[in-house]
Amino acid sequence: MGIKITATGHYLPSHIVTNDDLAQIMDTSDEWIQKRTGIAQRHISTGENTSDLASKVAEKILENRGIQAEELDFIILATMTPDSLAPSTACVVQDKINASKAFCFDISAACSGFIYALSMANHLMRSGGYKKGLVLGAETMSKVINWQDRSTAVLFGDGAGGVLLEASETLTESFIAEDLHSDGTRHLALVADEKGVRNPFFPEQPKDNLCLEMDGRSIFDFAIRNVPETINQVIANSNLKKEDISWVIPHQANIRLIQAISKKTKIPIEKFGMNIAKTGNTSAGSIPILLDQMIMNQTIQTGDILLLTGFGGGLTWGSITVKI
Amino acid sequence: MGIKITATGHYLPSHIVTNDDLAQIMDTSDEWIQKRTGIAQRHISTGENTSDLASKVAEKILENRGIQAEELDFIILATMTPDSLAPSTACVVQDKINASKAFCFDISAACSGFIYALSMANHLMRSGGYKKGLVLGAETMSKVINWQDRSTAVLFGDGAGGVLLEASETLTESFIAEDLHSDGTRHLALVADEKGVRNPFFPEQPKDNLCLEMDGRSIFDFAIRNVPETINQVIANSNLKKEDISWVIPHQANIRLIQAISKKTKIPIEKFGMNIAKTGNTSAGSIPILLDQMIMNQTIQTGDILLLTGFGGGLTWGSITVKI
Repeated sequence: MGIKITATGHYLPSHIVTNDDLAQIMDTSDEWIQKRTGIAQRHISTGENTSDLASKVAEKILENRGIQAEELDFIILATMTPDSLAPSTACVVQDKINASKAFCFDISAACSGFIYALSMANHLMRSGGYKKGLVLGAETMSKVINWQDRSTAVLFGDGAGGVLLEASETLTESFIAEDLHSDGTRHLALVADEKGVRNPFFPEQPKDNLCLEMDGRSIFDFAIRNVPETINQVIANSNLKKEDISWVIPHQANIRLIQAISKKTKIPIEKFGMNIAKTGNTSAGSIPILLDQMIMNQTIQTGDILLLTGFGGGLTWGSITVKI
Repeated sequence: MGIKITATGHYLPSHIVTNDDLAQIMDTSDEWIQKRTGIAQRHISTGENTSDLASKVAEKILENRGIQAEELDFIILATMTPDSLAPSTACVVQDKINASKAFCFDISAACSGFIYALSMANHLMRSGGYKKGLVLGAETMSKVINWQDRSTAVLFGDGAGGVLLEASETLTESFIAEDLHSDGTRHLALVADEKGVRNPFFPEQPKDNLCLEMDGRSIFDFAIRNVPETINQVIANSNLKKEDISWVIPHQANIRLIQAISKKTKIPIEKFGMNIAKTGNTSAGSIPILLDQMIMNQTIQTGDILLLTGFGGGLTWGSITVKI
C-alpha cells in the first residue's frame, strides 16, 4: 500500500503589508527589516480568521484533485492561532467545506505544527486504514503579534497551506522517514496567548498575555544548532545521501538562518526553497504554502525527493522526507 | 508486536467546591444541581494551571511503572484549556518531568480530546515504531467557565488523567478497534476562548469570548443520538458482542445522559463507570481520571475489555475498545 501526497494548496489573505507600510506605524525601515530577515512584505488578514484561510486551502485542494469533501476521512489542522479553543478550527473547516464524514482536530506545536500533523496523518492512515485525509497548517499570526514590538511585529504574516493524503494499493509511496523532537526546557523562548488560572476560589490576578513574546537570539541559536542535526538525522533515517535530496523545504523564519543551515549541512543554498521575502513567517502555514508554490510553478518535479523541516516554539523541531 | 496500556494515573486539585459552596455565589442549590446532573462536588484549581495538573499525572504514571521520563518517545496532551497556545502544554510537561527525548504536542478536540489523542498514540506507535508514549487529558476548565452563568458553571471541574503506552514483542495487545467522528455543522453548540481577528489593518473590534458558552439542550440531544451509535459501531468494528464489554468508560458530562445511553444501547447501567458526582465534567480529563480510579480500586481487572467513549464540542465523538 502507498500513502501519497496527491494534491497541495495554499491561500494568502489579499491585503499586503510592505516594510514601508510598517515603517509608518513603528520605528523601523525596509532596509533594516530586509537586511536582518529577508522579509519585504507579508499578507495580513483584514477579517478572515484561521478557519477562513484554511477552508480556502481545503477547497482549492479538493478542486485540484477533483474529489468531493464527503470522501475525506479526517482533517488535521496545525495552528497556534485557532478561531477558538472549542470547537477545534478543523471542525469549523469541516463545516465550511461540508466534509461530513471526516473526524477533525487541531494540533498545537507552534511553527513545527505542520510537520507534526503530517507525521500523525501518515501514521493514522498506515495503521488505522483511513484512505483520504487533509493536513492543513493555518495561522492568523496578526492576532497575537504585539504591534508595539518592532523586533517581532515585522517577522510574521498570515496564511495557510495544506496537502491531501491518499492511501491505496496502486499509489506509489510518498513517505520515506521522519525525525521529531521537542525541548521543553526552553519553552519560554517563544510564548503566545498565555492564560493563567482564574476563578472565584483563586483571588490572584490571572497571568495573561495574548501577545507573542520571543527571545529571538535564543530561537536563532537553537535553530542553527538543532535544524542541521535533524536534517542530517532524517537523511540517515531515510537511507539517503545528501545529494539525493532534490529540495529542502524549510520553515520560513529568517533568510539568514536558512543560509546558516545550508552552510552547516553543506547542502547548497540553491536547494533550499524560499518565499519568506513575500510571506514572512506564517508559522505552521509556511511549509505547505511554499510546497504548493514550488509544485505549482513546476520548480518541484514528479520524482523529486523533498526534505521538509520545521522548527519553533515549544521548542519543537523535526523533519520528514517525502517523494513527490 | 503488542501495544499495551501499562500504567495509568490521575490528579485532581485539592480544593473541593460543593454545590452548597456554589449556592453562595450564584442562584442555585444542591438539590437542583444533583437532580439535573448527578454532580455533588468538583475540584477547582487554586493556582495550578493545566501543565501542573498534567505533570502530576505524568510523574505518578512513571512512578507506578518504575520507568524514567527519559525513556519516553512522545507526550500527547489533549486539552481545551492549555497554559498557552505556544508553547504547547505538552512541552511544559516535558520540562517539568525531564522527558528529554520526547517529542510533544497538544491535541484540541474538546471533551473528545483524550479519545482522539489515544487513537493518535496507538497509530503513531504501530506505524512509527515508537516504544513508549504518554497520553494525557488535562483541563483547568475553571479558567473558561462563565461564573455568572449557573446553567454551565455548575457542570465543570478541573483535573487530569493519562495512560502510558508501551510497544514490544512480548506485550499483549491492548487496542481492539476505534470509531471517530466530528460534525462541524454544529460547531456553535459549545464555544470557548474565541479569538477574533485584530490588527492595525482591520479596524473592527475583535469578536472575543473567553467564556464557555454551551447550548446544553443541543449537546444533550446530540449525545443521546450519536453516542449509542458510536458504542454500537465500535463493538461491531471489534467483532465483539455487547456482552463481551466488561466496562463502558464514558465521558462524564451528566448522569442522566449516561443513564439514557445505557437504556438506548441496552448495556446495563451497572457496566458504566461513573465518578461525575465527585469530579463534575473535566472535559478531556474525564475518561483517564475514571479509568485510573477504577483500575486502582480494582473495579477493573486484568483481562477486562473496556469501551472508552467520548463526546463534546466540535462536535466530536468517538470510541475505542481496549483490553486491560
